[in-house]
Amino acid sequence: MSVSGLSAAARATLAGVSTATLTTQLFKRGLRNVFLQGVQPLARDWPEGRPNMVGEAFTLRYIPAREDIDHLGVFAGTAHPQRRAVEDIPPGHVLVMDCRGDASAASAGSILVTRMMVRGAAGVVTDGGLRDSTEIARMAIPCYARAPSAPTNLIKHHAVDINVPIGCGGVPVFPGDILVGDGEGVVVIPAHLAEDVARDAGEQEVFERFVIEQVRAGVGIFGLYPPEAEAKAAFEAWRQARGL
Amino acid sequence: MSVSGLSAAARATLAGVSTATLTTQLFKRGLRNVFLQGVQPLARDWPEGRPNMVGEAFTLRYIPAREDIDHLGVFAGTAHPQRRAVEDIPPGHVLVMDCRGDASAASAGSILVTRMMVRGAAGVVTDGGLRDSTEIARMAIPCYARAPSAPTNLIKHHAVDINVPIGCGGVPVFPGDILVGDGEGVVVIPAHLAEDVARDAGEQEVFERFVIEQVRAGVGIFGLYPPEAEAKAAFEAWRQARGL
Amino acid sequence: MSVSGLSAAARATLAGVSTATLTTQLFKRGLRNVFLQGVQPLARDWPEGRPNMVGEAFTLRYIPAREDIDHLGVFAGTAHPQRRAVEDIPPGHVLVMDCRGDASAASAGSILVTRMMVRGAAGVVTDGGLRDSTEIARMAIPCYARAPSAPTNLIKHHAVDINVPIGCGGVPVFPGDILVGDGEGVVVIPAHLAEDVARDAGEQEVFERFVIEQVRAGVGIFGLYPPEAEAKAAFEAWRQARGL
Amino acid sequence: MSVSGLSAAARATLAGVSTATLTTQLFKRGLRNVFLQGVQPLARDWPEGRPNMVGEAFTLRYIPAREDIDHLGVFAGTAHPQRRAVEDIPPGHVLVMDCRGDASAASAGSILVTRMMVRGAAGVVTDGGLRDSTEIARMAIPCYARAPSAPTNLIKHHAVDINVPIGCGGVPVFPGDILVGDGEGVVVIPAHLAEDVARDAGEQEVFERFVIEQVRAGVGIFGLYPPEAEAKAAFEAWRQARGL
Amino acid sequence: MSVSGLSAAARATLAGVSTATLTTQLFKRGLRNVFLQGVQPLARDWPEGRPNMVGEAFTLRYIPAREDIDHLGVFAGTAHPQRRAVEDIPPGHVLVMDCRGDASAASAGSILVTRMMVRGAAGVVTDGGLRDSTEIARMAIPCYARAPSAPTNLIKHHAVDINVPIGCGGVPVFPGDILVGDGEGVVVIPAHLAEDVARDAGEQEVFERFVIEQVRAGVGIFGLYPPEAEAKAAFEAWRQARGL
Amino acid sequence: MSVSGLSAAARATLAGVSTATLTTQLFKRGLRNVFLQGVQPLARDWPEGRPNMVGEAFTLRYIPAREDIDHLGVFAGTAHPQRRAVEDIPPGHVLVMDCRGDASAASAGSILVTRMMVRGAAGVVTDGGLRDSTEIARMAIPCYARAPSAPTNLIKHHAVDINVPIGCGGVPVFPGDILVGDGEGVVVIPAHLAEDVARDAGEQEVFERFVIEQVRAGVGIFGLYPPEAEAKAAFEAWRQARGL
Repeated sequence: MSVSGLSAAARATLAGVSTATLTTQLFKRGLRNVFLQGVQPLARDWPEGRPNMVGEAFTLRYIPAREDIDHLGVFAGTAHPQRRAVEDIPPGHVLVMDCRGDASAASAGSILVTRMMVRGAAGVVTDGGLRDSTEIARMAIPCYARAPSAPTNLIKHHAVDINVPIGCGGVPVFPGDILVGDGEGVVVIPAHLAEDVARDAGEQEVFERFVIEQVRAGVGIFGLYPPEAEAKAAFEAWRQARGL
Repeated sequence: MSVSGLSAAARATLAGVSTATLTTQLFKRGLRNVFLQGVQPLARDWPEGRPNMVGEAFTLRYIPAREDIDHLGVFAGTAHPQRRAVEDIPPGHVLVMDCRGDASAASAGSILVTRMMVRGAAGVVTDGGLRDSTEIARMAIPCYARAPSAPTNLIKHHAVDINVPIGCGGVPVFPGDILVGDGEGVVVIPAHLAEDVARDAGEQEVFERFVIEQVRAGVGIFGLYPPEAEAKAAFEAWRQARGL
Repeated sequence: MSVSGLSAAARATLAGVSTATLTTQLFKRGLRNVFLQGVQPLARDWPEGRPNMVGEAFTLRYIPAREDIDHLGVFAGTAHPQRRAVEDIPPGHVLVMDCRGDASAASAGSILVTRMMVRGAAGVVTDGGLRDSTEIARMAIPCYARAPSAPTNLIKHHAVDINVPIGCGGVPVFPGDILVGDGEGVVVIPAHLAEDVARDAGEQEVFERFVIEQVRAGVGIFGLYPPEAEAKAAFEAWRQARGL
Repeated sequence: MSVSGLSAAARATLAGVSTATLTTQLFKRGLRNVFLQGVQPLARDWPEGRPNMVGEAFTLRYIPAREDIDHLGVFAGTAHPQRRAVEDIPPGHVLVMDCRGDASAASAGSILVTRMMVRGAAGVVTDGGLRDSTEIARMAIPCYARAPSAPTNLIKHHAVDINVPIGCGGVPVFPGDILVGDGEGVVVIPAHLAEDVARDAGEQEVFERFVIEQVRAGVGIFGLYPPEAEAKAAFEAWRQARGL
Repeated sequence: MSVSGLSAAARATLAGVSTATLTTQLFKRGLRNVFLQGVQPLARDWPEGRPNMVGEAFTLRYIPAREDIDHLGVFAGTAHPQRRAVEDIPPGHVLVMDCRGDASAASAGSILVTRMMVRGAAGVVTDGGLRDSTEIARMAIPCYARAPSAPTNLIKHHAVDINVPIGCGGVPVFPGDILVGDGEGVVVIPAHLAEDVARDAGEQEVFERFVIEQVRAGVGIFGLYPPEAEAKAAFEAWRQARGL
Repeated sequence: MSVSGLSAAARATLAGVSTATLTTQLFKRGLRNVFLQGVQPLARDWPEGRPNMVGEAFTLRYIPAREDIDHLGVFAGTAHPQRRAVEDIPPGHVLVMDCRGDASAASAGSILVTRMMVRGAAGVVTDGGLRDSTEIARMAIPCYARAPSAPTNLIKHHAVDINVPIGCGGVPVFPGDILVGDGEGVVVIPAHLAEDVARDAGEQEVFERFVIEQVRAGVGIFGLYPPEAEAKAAFEAWRQARGL
């Protein structure tokens, strides 16, 4: 068990399965709206085998900015929710920001992202913009945004709350939900489903590894994907042979 | 003084000035983003002289819905935030709902709106949909929405918070801000500016009444709007003659 | 039983319940995406008590136009699918057109709508535009569109198929599905659910009539909507007293 | 001949034909993009028989506003292009404003519209917003906008040029083009085509009057619309009988 | 001649000319809407000299999904249109999918794409999403989509038809039309124009190779692009010297 | 001093600071809308240390195209504004094109971009499309567009004016304004602010270099960013030690 409740085994599995597989598992459980729409990795390449971003959601909520209260002076002291979030996010968590899908200004930049990386955060996710995006794209911490966007957040976003339920990319995110991100995007797994989904997703990916081998070898998809009896037996044999 | 802090005089003035005038007053004070974008009155006609909606903001925040927690059973009991809001909104207040601009489902319908009207609410404003919209359009209580929308809120909206700062129509709304709505739409006046803005807006409208009379009589706008010395003098005479 | 399979009783009920009620009934059956998004009645007013549009879907599918094949000559003869649809739609049916949500051109105009009205069609629905819209808005046949739009369909829409499954306003529509439209918009009821949904919708509206009377009389919504034991008993008494 | 070159006969014809008919005539001449997209009449009703807006385009171009140069002081004097346009527009012309489709602020309000009406302008068209829209909607001068919008133009729009070619609602508008507006919207007729289009549009509407009478009487559209020999003969007889 | 009717020479030429050149050739023939809007290659890099995707269109049509009929069970057997398409697409063809421009869910993933690659398909094009997109981006088969999108197609897309005319990216696509894709996007060439367009596009590119050499050498574009007599002569000499 | 008025020192500084920093400096001066929205570099990678695009704005204005006046013949001669702009843009300037945010067609292609590069232009910026985009992406001249887009500009864009004030990406651009582009996007600096902004941006970046070093070393952001007295002193020491 990690501090946050997600088992180390589940965390390890989630680091290796695709967001596509996770959406299928959640669809099986009746959840259709789990993939953040319009939110992409800043990293321009996602090499094969790069582990996924996996972590509990720590949230920051923005509302539209107002000129008289959103000026550069607000960052003095220790009370501003954006700065608070950066210093408070627990290790292994993902900062998820609700920018109402508005990427015309940034929600964070390289200094804050570096600070979170040093503090052990697992990733940063926003449905607004990120500034210093080419610099952030080269960092080790996975970051996802709607678009690169240079303007300071004060121009459009007023930080108002930490760690309340939010929407991000059109998906509900509750603090403690598990965020998983790969080169395709980010999926939200409700906390109470995470262990279960991780286990079944791992199983699904073993089977799909078998399928793709078969397809590469010229086997058609009928009877194989989804599998009928013959394919099921072949899979079991394949699996045993590989000790998977 | 009303219970909520807005003077009766300011409230009366705000009931008679246009949202256009109010945006000009707020622009003079450095505020540019005060008119709810894409939010319109449900009433198909707005007769000349109909008093504006005026009231303090009482807010309800929605995030995107999730299938396992947003089912019809949630309305049982007294805890659901949407139902809570309807029973808690103080008289003279306006319910303002943050639906993230998504009108593909309703945020309320005729039963809840009727209840708020009976309880003395001053109006209902949402950047989502309203269902039973043709029925609501005929009611005495002014209601504003992004679009008529039949689907129940549970399909898209999860009610999560009451009376926190929200965004609505792209504008920040803090509990206690003054909402004013006419046939054109809704403007948000930050609470601390309301008395001042009301006074100056009243003055502006007296002057514009003079201007429009002049223009109808064939006077050109140069020197009149904005006024130079001669027009200023004519206005003062006009005003005194009418005791305004 | 009408020719098309929908009972006269169901048809009568559906003519009197709101699309809001119907979306709730369909939500109870697991269907969330049944209300045509962005599609509105052309009629500028929808008087209280006006019967709904009710009818089986007869569909017309458009794809984007191509300059060399979409010229005014195509309307000669009897083969053009749009003209074919107008002459083939059975009485009591609703013409539903898939324009891919593109209202930058019309999908029909007053001559074709008049012809369908004369032929007994129950209504016209499109997620594109309708031309001659002010004239159509005054006709007895209910028509729904994304927007008034003067340009001839040939500019954007190539009619390609009659009576195949389509999307309209983001909702799947299969030939024979039941379309119901009121002043708020249009809901699609899958054919096999129509009798059931009609019956339960009728029941729901009787109850809501009771609720709104109570609310107007000052009763709060807790315990009433949804009803607990006491309200249920009161409703039964109310209902019996009125013979509903 | 009017001052502007459009004959009185053409002007009279254009006042009575629909924008739908005009788009067909322009389509016949190879022009597909002539109807302003997303621009609607402010008037909530368009009674049968109300004459169209007809007039030569007089244009005003806005670019996005900049805080340091777009303040209330710019309206002093006689140099501001928006105010200049209002005082310079010739009688019988239509003010057409390019707001880049952005209706989040107004491009004019009731005082300026009144001034133009008094000066004899034929109409006002914008792909931005209009403020004081409920008041303007009641005026005799036809006005078209993307949406009612209270905020002053200075918040979003910097007036920069008078009477240059512009885009409005996605359509090119050259000074002197003929704008025609009915209850459906606005069509732009290139100046050199206006006489021709007017004549043919008048002819088309006589024929369509015949068609709609036939259709109301139960005649099918095949062979009638478009007409084959028999229908052509019937039309000629119908026309002679009525002296049209 | 290939099986499908496109000559080997045309196919070879089309593999080497740009989609930009092809749109110019089609514009010369009166076709303006031939480039798929919003559809991009999944491959993150497109090395100089990579041959284009070229192939006949084999189409798959989706309409919006419905919860009761779009569940994981539909993939059993051999009847599901999506699976059918994957097993039926002829070698050398391009699968083109109509997702109504909705990329909030996938239209295919790596297993199906692999199967089509093994079966000899020339490419995959969708105006929806593709899942497993980072994996697909590394494959040899060129794939184009509106966006990477993890969710299974069942969440949004109901596969309904194979090889009917569709729209994709706002462009009409008829079965047998020639699809050509480079690093910029995809162009649709109506089948009957393909040989002609290929020939002229080849010629155009020879000329543009000359032009770009001249421009790199400091020659101005006036008189060169488009060419006047002198540039035409220079081009002919240049061409002969190179035997092109 | 360069020919255009921007000092060589300012130009050098602007080549090395980020667009994020520049938006902050402009925000301090009251300008919020300075970053081109939706406009990205065509270059797929932006290596660390690549100098920014810096240059004075030379503008080209497009309005929507019209079929009868936008044909391939317009490029003959020397009068077409697009071709004129390419031959007239002074060295060190950036061509900025107003395409009304419409990227469904190109605003230029590789031949014109090559010509501008040869002539010494500093960059090309458009809120429309660029064709031959993969080829342009490999050139030394920095180019920014809304999207790659193959269709010739004549399909959607009518070039109308050179070097007038325009909007691009929602931002006002006056001829002579300073455009700065990095891997994130493009910022517009009003001409009269450029020297000042350059100086302060340079200062800001020195400080942020210090901050990021501190953060990487484990220092928290409170008291550091923005700096309180202790951090200010540490910064001065750090700076002196490095002679910055």
